[in-house]
Amino acid sequence: MTTLVFGHKSPDTDSTGSPLVWAWYLSHVGTPAEARLLGEPNTEAKFVAQRWGFDLPPVLTEVEAGQPVVIVDTNNPAELPAGINDADIRAIIDHHKLTGGIETKAPIDITIRPLACTATIMFDLMGADAAQMPDGIKGLILSCILSDTLEFRSPTTTPVDRGLAEQLAGELGVDIPSFAAEMFAAKSDVSSFSDAELLRMDSKEYTVGGKDFRVSVLETTSPGTVLDRKDSLMKSMEDVAREDGADQVLLFVVDILNEEATLLVPNELVKSVAEKSFGATVTGDTVVLPGIMSRKKQIIPNLKV
Amino acid sequence: MTTLVFGHKSPDTDSTGSPLVWAWYLSHVGTPAEARLLGEPNTEAKFVAQRWGFDLPPVLTEVEAGQPVVIVDTNNPAELPAGINDADIRAIIDHHKLTGGIETKAPIDITIRPLACTATIMFDLMGADAAQMPDGIKGLILSCILSDTLEFRSPTTTPVDRGLAEQLAGELGVDIPSFAAEMFAAKSDVSSFSDAELLRMDSKEYTVGGKDFRVSVLETTSPGTVLDRKDSLMKSMEDVAREDGADQVLLFVVDILNEEATLLVPNELVKSVAEKSFGATVTGDTVVLPGIMSRKKQIIPNLKV
Repeated sequence: MTTLVFGHKSPDTDSTGSPLVWAWYLSHVGTPAEARLLGEPNTEAKFVAQRWGFDLPPVLTEVEAGQPVVIVDTNNPAELPAGINDADIRAIIDHHKLTGGIETKAPIDITIRPLACTATIMFDLMGADAAQMPDGIKGLILSCILSDTLEFRSPTTTPVDRGLAEQLAGELGVDIPSFAAEMFAAKSDVSSFSDAELLRMDSKEYTVGGKDFRVSVLETTSPGTVLDRKDSLMKSMEDVAREDGADQVLLFVVDILNEEATLLVPNELVKSVAEKSFGATVTGDTVVLPGIMSRKKQIIPNLKV
Repeated sequence: MTTLVFGHKSPDTDSTGSPLVWAWYLSHVGTPAEARLLGEPNTEAKFVAQRWGFDLPPVLTEVEAGQPVVIVDTNNPAELPAGINDADIRAIIDHHKLTGGIETKAPIDITIRPLACTATIMFDLMGADAAQMPDGIKGLILSCILSDTLEFRSPTTTPVDRGLAEQLAGELGVDIPSFAAEMFAAKSDVSSFSDAELLRMDSKEYTVGGKDFRVSVLETTSPGTVLDRKDSLMKSMEDVAREDGADQVLLFVVDILNEEATLLVPNELVKSVAEKSFGATVTGDTVVLPGIMSRKKQIIPNLKV
């Protein structure tokens, strides 16, 4: 049976590109495999797939019991199909904290590394086979790294991620600054999304101090485009929180080029979060948080109510 | 703060040797680290430590919040100190199924591989540094592999485990058959243990069909020594099960040299388990299961009530 490789729900570039990379590798070493998506990918991921000549993988809505799967870029059951623990999980490759909740029936290959990007780990795992990657696969890995590191600006960036991206860009003849600018422009083109879609596009749930937050991040080179919609976004937060069973949506608009985030402050709860978590002084309905780029490294570890 | 490296409770050779191996490696690469044990190791593990010139690591009964730790040879919270999720877990290196229950606060290094032995994985993770292992560390890795594979007889054995053991034995000038015989003789010397200690020595809890089993294995070259005690062992099972909150203890006496297991059959429940799980025909209070050597590969996956 063909092994299905997929990342998390609400796929970003790493959760779109890495499944394609690993499906290539598995097929290359004799295990028939195909990539799947757990939802509509974001605009950057679509641009990246097209740029390197890949069709978007089909969307998988449920996984059958016994289906061989490889999970990449997450180990969190909440970000995976409901029946995931009944699938035949063959491997997990990830760079997130261990959530607990995935169980396997036998020992399998699990590799989690504190690197910026899943694709970086895959390159390492391929060993000598990496030399046989076609250009499209190299391009996907490069794109995943540039996306997850925000072109090396994010504090999640490690020398391993950067070194690999620069090596691949050299082999491909890609100029990193101009290619990253194209990627970020694609990611910043959010005009076609509703407010609710924007709030859920890159969002993870965290519980702090008894409150369930939906921590949403929008990485953009054009923060004004998003902030122009702040009144309707703040109004939509109430519906999204209620529908998703959360107490509050937090929206951080990350300005990639200026390396800062703007947090929308719709109420006293979020004002308190901004002050206690980031030492911010809040006067209006937004607050700028200088240097904040990474949910994983900077937002979640500091979140206080 | 010194990083503490430990395996599972009721330490066997792999959970005694692998922490020493990894503590050496971490210290070698500049991270001060020391091995710990989560209890008294078995007689084989004691023999192995002494043979390669190591003092037994101190026994750790609880882990302080924030203590940097590396967990090896398990990822099951039930086999670890109660406060494990409050420790600063830096890495996990294991070869067991993912249990779910360990959570980390940030992404860490996790490597789980379906190999026979944790020490085999460590050798691979060391990369070029493995060339600098002193003989004692090489000897520990060799011993862990011979122990976990029952000198390559167990179906958990992979070519990677076997190849590494043969390579290290060659470098150390160790004759594998005679050294393994010494190890197994040490493991088989169980005369000093009470029945309850024997039942708990190498035991894992599994729930099947609504019943909680303590699945105990005694690997020995001298099964008669254990089976001579079968009446008092079966009597002790009731106390051990009650004290440990299990429904039933299953004791498999694995005859390493004849590659078979003898299951003690104290009652109708175990008789039914033997028949349904292994297709055995039970007539008395023991049943021989030809070829059964591995709890992980052969006993647990087949267990039925």
